[in-house]
Amino acid sequence: MSTPLASHATRTERDTFGPIEVPANRLWGAQTQRSLQNFDISGEQQPREIIRALAQIKRSSARVNQALGLQDEAKTAAIVAAADEVIAGRHADEFPLVVWQTGSGTQTNMNVNEVLANRASEIMGGERGEGRLVHPNDDVNRSQSSNDVFPTAMHVAAVDAIRHKLLPAISRLRAMLAQKSKDFDGIVKIGRTHLQDATPLTLGQEFSGYVAQLEHGEKHVRDALPHLYELALGGTAVGTGLNAPKGYAEQVAAELASLTGLPFVTAPNKFEALASADGLVHAHGALKTLAASMMKIANDVRWLASGPRSGIGELSIPENEPGSSIMPGKVNPTQSEAVTMLAAQVFGNDVAINFGGASGNFELNVFRPMIAYNFLQSVRLLADGMVSFNDHCAVGIEPNRERIAELVDRSLMLVTALNTHIGYDKAAYIAKKAHKEGSSLRDAAIASGHVTAEQFDQWVVPAQMTGR
Amino acid sequence: MSTPLASHATRTERDTFGPIEVPANRLWGAQTQRSLQNFDISGEQQPREIIRALAQIKRSSARVNQALGLQDEAKTAAIVAAADEVIAGRHADEFPLVVWQTGSGTQTNMNVNEVLANRASEIMGGERGEGRLVHPNDDVNRSQSSNDVFPTAMHVAAVDAIRHKLLPAISRLRAMLAQKSKDFDGIVKIGRTHLQDATPLTLGQEFSGYVAQLEHGEKHVRDALPHLYELALGGTAVGTGLNAPKGYAEQVAAELASLTGLPFVTAPNKFEALASADGLVHAHGALKTLAASMMKIANDVRWLASGPRSGIGELSIPENEPGSSIMPGKVNPTQSEAVTMLAAQVFGNDVAINFGGASGNFELNVFRPMIAYNFLQSVRLLADGMVSFNDHCAVGIEPNRERIAELVDRSLMLVTALNTHIGYDKAAYIAKKAHKEGSSLRDAAIASGHVTAEQFDQWVVPAQMTGR
Amino acid sequence: MSTPLASHATRTERDTFGPIEVPANRLWGAQTQRSLQNFDISGEQQPREIIRALAQIKRSSARVNQALGLQDEAKTAAIVAAADEVIAGRHADEFPLVVWQTGSGTQTNMNVNEVLANRASEIMGGERGEGRLVHPNDDVNRSQSSNDVFPTAMHVAAVDAIRHKLLPAISRLRAMLAQKSKDFDGIVKIGRTHLQDATPLTLGQEFSGYVAQLEHGEKHVRDALPHLYELALGGTAVGTGLNAPKGYAEQVAAELASLTGLPFVTAPNKFEALASADGLVHAHGALKTLAASMMKIANDVRWLASGPRSGIGELSIPENEPGSSIMPGKVNPTQSEAVTMLAAQVFGNDVAINFGGASGNFELNVFRPMIAYNFLQSVRLLADGMVSFNDHCAVGIEPNRERIAELVDRSLMLVTALNTHIGYDKAAYIAKKAHKEGSSLRDAAIASGHVTAEQFDQWVVPAQMTGR
Amino acid sequence: MSTPLASHATRTERDTFGPIEVPANRLWGAQTQRSLQNFDISGEQQPREIIRALAQIKRSSARVNQALGLQDEAKTAAIVAAADEVIAGRHADEFPLVVWQTGSGTQTNMNVNEVLANRASEIMGGERGEGRLVHPNDDVNRSQSSNDVFPTAMHVAAVDAIRHKLLPAISRLRAMLAQKSKDFDGIVKIGRTHLQDATPLTLGQEFSGYVAQLEHGEKHVRDALPHLYELALGGTAVGTGLNAPKGYAEQVAAELASLTGLPFVTAPNKFEALASADGLVHAHGALKTLAASMMKIANDVRWLASGPRSGIGELSIPENEPGSSIMPGKVNPTQSEAVTMLAAQVFGNDVAINFGGASGNFELNVFRPMIAYNFLQSVRLLADGMVSFNDHCAVGIEPNRERIAELVDRSLMLVTALNTHIGYDKAAYIAKKAHKEGSSLRDAAIASGHVTAEQFDQWVVPAQMTGR
Repeated sequence: MSTPLASHATRTERDTFGPIEVPANRLWGAQTQRSLQNFDISGEQQPREIIRALAQIKRSSARVNQALGLQDEAKTAAIVAAADEVIAGRHADEFPLVVWQTGSGTQTNMNVNEVLANRASEIMGGERGEGRLVHPNDDVNRSQSSNDVFPTAMHVAAVDAIRHKLLPAISRLRAMLAQKSKDFDGIVKIGRTHLQDATPLTLGQEFSGYVAQLEHGEKHVRDALPHLYELALGGTAVGTGLNAPKGYAEQVAAELASLTGLPFVTAPNKFEALASADGLVHAHGALKTLAASMMKIANDVRWLASGPRSGIGELSIPENEPGSSIMPGKVNPTQSEAVTMLAAQVFGNDVAINFGGASGNFELNVFRPMIAYNFLQSVRLLADGMVSFNDHCAVGIEPNRERIAELVDRSLMLVTALNTHIGYDKAAYIAKKAHKEGSSLRDAAIASGHVTAEQFDQWVVPAQMTGR
Repeated sequence: MSTPLASHATRTERDTFGPIEVPANRLWGAQTQRSLQNFDISGEQQPREIIRALAQIKRSSARVNQALGLQDEAKTAAIVAAADEVIAGRHADEFPLVVWQTGSGTQTNMNVNEVLANRASEIMGGERGEGRLVHPNDDVNRSQSSNDVFPTAMHVAAVDAIRHKLLPAISRLRAMLAQKSKDFDGIVKIGRTHLQDATPLTLGQEFSGYVAQLEHGEKHVRDALPHLYELALGGTAVGTGLNAPKGYAEQVAAELASLTGLPFVTAPNKFEALASADGLVHAHGALKTLAASMMKIANDVRWLASGPRSGIGELSIPENEPGSSIMPGKVNPTQSEAVTMLAAQVFGNDVAINFGGASGNFELNVFRPMIAYNFLQSVRLLADGMVSFNDHCAVGIEPNRERIAELVDRSLMLVTALNTHIGYDKAAYIAKKAHKEGSSLRDAAIASGHVTAEQFDQWVVPAQMTGR
Repeated sequence: MSTPLASHATRTERDTFGPIEVPANRLWGAQTQRSLQNFDISGEQQPREIIRALAQIKRSSARVNQALGLQDEAKTAAIVAAADEVIAGRHADEFPLVVWQTGSGTQTNMNVNEVLANRASEIMGGERGEGRLVHPNDDVNRSQSSNDVFPTAMHVAAVDAIRHKLLPAISRLRAMLAQKSKDFDGIVKIGRTHLQDATPLTLGQEFSGYVAQLEHGEKHVRDALPHLYELALGGTAVGTGLNAPKGYAEQVAAELASLTGLPFVTAPNKFEALASADGLVHAHGALKTLAASMMKIANDVRWLASGPRSGIGELSIPENEPGSSIMPGKVNPTQSEAVTMLAAQVFGNDVAINFGGASGNFELNVFRPMIAYNFLQSVRLLADGMVSFNDHCAVGIEPNRERIAELVDRSLMLVTALNTHIGYDKAAYIAKKAHKEGSSLRDAAIASGHVTAEQFDQWVVPAQMTGR
Repeated sequence: MSTPLASHATRTERDTFGPIEVPANRLWGAQTQRSLQNFDISGEQQPREIIRALAQIKRSSARVNQALGLQDEAKTAAIVAAADEVIAGRHADEFPLVVWQTGSGTQTNMNVNEVLANRASEIMGGERGEGRLVHPNDDVNRSQSSNDVFPTAMHVAAVDAIRHKLLPAISRLRAMLAQKSKDFDGIVKIGRTHLQDATPLTLGQEFSGYVAQLEHGEKHVRDALPHLYELALGGTAVGTGLNAPKGYAEQVAAELASLTGLPFVTAPNKFEALASADGLVHAHGALKTLAASMMKIANDVRWLASGPRSGIGELSIPENEPGSSIMPGKVNPTQSEAVTMLAAQVFGNDVAINFGGASGNFELNVFRPMIAYNFLQSVRLLADGMVSFNDHCAVGIEPNRERIAELVDRSLMLVTALNTHIGYDKAAYIAKKAHKEGSSLRDAAIASGHVTAEQFDQWVVPAQMTGR
């Protein structure tokens, strides 16, 4: 992460615990350094989305603190400028802490406080480190506590990711599938229930089911947003708002809303906001439902595209890569596989989130970084997965019209069309006869004596069985 | 289930598979009997809620079939009368099939068809069995398929259970906790974050967090209802509505709405309604969130009531039973334990439902009885659990005022009140000093020289730190 | 449960809480009655397996207490006789308590104590109720505490169910599949990877994979038994064994081993035995693995049997019932569906168990009845499901030889056989050419000029590609 | 990842799909490049452990291919040398592919093939790219298929991580807790069941329960290893071993065993090894049990250390960092929080693995990269988490002897000691009296008239109640 020289040069930082050596070229301070040393676990870093949301909070908080007369203009401007750099993605290497730290996310809040304090100091012409002009706690964290900052960052990051990544991805795939549904409107195919041949429908109808799933899925996600718009900020340490000035909670929510363009409000009950993670537990319920929908869709696509010669083979999907290192010519449904894998991951993430969300005690839930990590991963997986599936698979799905026609024509289940004409029992007899003899339904029907050839051709018209 | 005599007396029933012996005293027929013999698995029967919803569907369907001219008045009246008996809870022993059968619930649909056909026949003055006047398929199941009936029954049963059991239970507990929150308004207590002493709040504020959790929880559940109001009925076997008359779908939804007083509508897309279980997967996301909330609340209550002498002991809860067979005088938080156990069960049920909901193929999801079983169990567990917790625990929660006062008074965390007066570092010094010396915060503060006794008493007033 | 008359007639029972009215015709006492009134939740009763194991414990304990001189012979004989009745399945209605009670299972332990005390009293010629000759606590529960009794009952019931139900079921299905594997030895079929056609194997080889899964599955389950053989009994309330006589723990484990024929031992560390449920959490890890295996097998079978005309159709499975209420002639893979549903349930149960198992505090885990309920359900589901799948599906699986031959013959993937002769790139070219032109692989190969007809016929022999 | 210059300079690589531009400075080839472009999903890269295992496989395979006369010595030496570089951790940036790719891991297998082919070519004095002297498929992947390579890599990586990271971590923490258990041997403390005061035990006994949990946990993990020792290699594409020479499977397993020092063997049934992931599903069952144990231990430690003034306060844990940004002097149980969070993650991972493991079809499971990702994360989390908890928490746990004595002395539950002397009912009366009056148990006992002061002091000796 740093040059050999830099890693040897250190400066001394100090917190309530005393002095500690920090790499001289780093903007972080004592508490970040301690966390690095105390939590050498597995390597999953705090999500970038959380760091960005924290910077947005610090920026908004600085402006409200100034407006409330708690901070002078120069410091505010410097903190705002430093935060803007982080929001823009700079200093990414300055946030090295892992998810597996204190359950309140305190150490990452302090990491951001320290980086912004040092950077703001530099912007003001001061130095980084002990002599800095801006204090991580007294200035950058003013009017805040990790206990209200981190839940706020989780909601801000979650809403941002849902609205700017996930909802557009759902839209995109839904629109594509709707177009396919329209394109495939006239294509009559065999239906399948219990994996068994059933009465026919159109390929367009089949795809319309996927579209309806995504429409509902989008609505589920949207319904989960209002709870996430509620921000804990202003609750400080236990929800009472101690040490936060009057008006701070409402103003900082408004400032964050203005900064992000998202309709954040201050949580009407800060005790719930700090002690539970119910908003995220519930919103992830919408995500896992979306995962269930995507697994169904991706599975259908790969089964319908199975073959090329010995499967169902009704659909062709884009060939994006060689499928196998040993079997030439084979092309695999890799986009479906990526989607079904990530759907399974979302189901796993849901359980981790449920466990964490249920396990708060008293005034604080301390499973927060774990919850944020899983939630934001699920959003990324679903959003990126939908875009990938859309761009590299759905866009190129084509019907194999000959194969589709072959399969519907030889089906026995068209017999259902005879039900209303000759009754259930005779129809069943004909189907069984055809099945046993390996004959076509038409031949068996006529041979049965229950139906004439003319009647059969008039009554058994697959397209008329699709109810379009 | 039956007398020795009855179990020996049988009659012959017949389906497309041929004849089969059925106990003579039973209303069920051939297909139920086959399922009994083919699925001798574990013993969990189809939920009564599903049987009732199926009877409601058959009743509504009979009336719509008559209105559409498909069925005469006498048969309709008999089916309606038979269905009313089942809806009223009669014939409970006639539905013996287990959850672990065909994944479409076909066998339970046929069980209901058979029972209603035989019973309607009797009502019409006919016999049960082969000579019955009403046919299970041609009459009772007219215009329907198991594939649209069973998903419809799942939505009807789920909505009924949510609206008539769960929402009232949430309301009841929320109102009780809101009353407690009001009653406990003036009681200042130590806050706890990370299980560590934190700044004070009132017991009323702490309970207000629980109320806010349940308010959000109720909203989450309500948001999940519209998807569940959509009924698959009219889609028949694969969603195309083949063999259902025009208008049937809309009219039967209206009839069911009228019968149940619930705002059911026909699903705008029947393919989604048959092939997915997304409505239930999503609604269970609201249930699992409620489980997370209840686990938090029940855990807080039992920890706050821990003791009597060597725990936290801030709350007293009702003594409902002797706590131990060996330790006299001990009273355990058994209602909390029941709630936390059932919350864990709901989390497990969620996973089973996710697995099933994600695993549909093509035109049908065949994990339906398993999904219904888990969903309805979760609703029952949460609803009954909340009522039990309310009536046998929450109602009798009392604050131990002396203990609460003792704990807040000796806390070091009141030092936070000094932060804004003497700064973070000096405040931290005082707290550490008191901690190290085992002294009171007041003594340590005065001894530090940073604060006078007068200042301390003026600045450190727990009640003023609660922000009320 | 009782006649109207009986339900009105009551007797007064008494515990440390005072008097309470109990139905006169019931063997249970005061604490059971209180639990019935305090926990009216959802209706899932304590598993019969747990009641039986508790009776086995009480029987063994009575004998050891007598052997240690703590109880006279008459009382011992009466308790043993009463316990034998319960073990034999009598008095099933006397154990009405639900799973959702105190998390230690205390109320069910007391239920058994009360029933056995009253029944033993009757056996001794005394009455039931207040004047009984045997005391539920002082006699039946002597040397025990709910805290060691209930974990012991869970292990005893789990081991019994695993050894007498699950392992035989695995054996049975494994043997059947092994026979099928042998029967299908010479049948060359197309392999499928990524749902795409792959190089051939025999149907016997494919089934040998299922056999290997079950062999491993059986070993996993067996490896989990030693931890379950360890019994908590003798630990009493917190693990120290207070109030249990010296030697009791070892002797009662030996007595239980002798009674059940199962190699139980006293747990070397009673604190672990009371405070954790790790033995069951781990053993359920073997059960969920078995569920994964069964889901794979059941899915393969239903996909290979898909059709009859428009699916894969390589296998025929037994027709056990009519498949659909609307589509005559359709036969569904209902046994596979039952198995996949119950596998999903086992995955859900696993999560509930994990949650409960992880949530113990200090000297006791209080998620016990919930854990037992899920564990024993999983064993029943898997055992019964395997037997059902075996008897109603696997036994009748037949290969559709013509279909299998057709699919392997037209496959392009036989091209792999050319790899070692003409290299990867030329082989790929031939496969792509055949795919593009819809021609047979043989034609494309010869047309490519890279292979002669003789070479093709010599090199591409499906049976030789299966490595048998 | 690369300099601006480098990212513009490309070379043309080629696969069966045709040409594609690859960054000139990269060792990877066409298929890696395609995957990068086709799977821009979320960013979780294939675990380093998998890359390393793949390199070990390629190295071993090269040597066996040479031994079997399939590859000359020069190429073999070059592949071995290239593989050794990757095994040593070099070229880490050359493996950029994400987890969410093809479910067989084919693309990562090809990534390794391409990197090793180009690097081996350079080692031989050739170039990278089109003119390379070593072919990714024909040479590096010789005798292999992704379908047997990737499952093998998963087992090799899993066993390596378990044996070299996890088992030592368990050992280390177990030894530490065993030492603490010994150190705390004489410290009598109040027991707690249902969070309520119970009979006493020693702190050493309490810690012995943790030791027993880890001992069992270690055994569970060890029992899971034999299945993981079985390697799929030699099964090639569908398990038949087509295109792999006779003897290859056994020899390559032996070579891998020799290289790694781990007792790998060739899987007796390759169809199971390719089509299922049961070995990992089962082994993760042991990991989730360990997570349950660690959650119990970490929770106990933080509750026992709760306070400092208003909690239980029986233990002191190391202060590693400032606890709060607003509350000076507060020290939080951050190591416990990290452990409980990562335990929740392991439970989530388990569900994802179950879903993937259950979802194979026919000859291949295609949820492999997702399964590997979760499995290896769980091992890292548990291993690192245990070491962190050991080094930064367990090592410094100290008993607060005064507090412990205070809590046991004032407990009412010592009354249990009176049970055997004066009977359950009188003992209960005394405890209730003391509870009601707020008096000490001794005072209440004497006042009751059932016990004299001498008797009380003789009978109620906490240390004698611990059964040591």
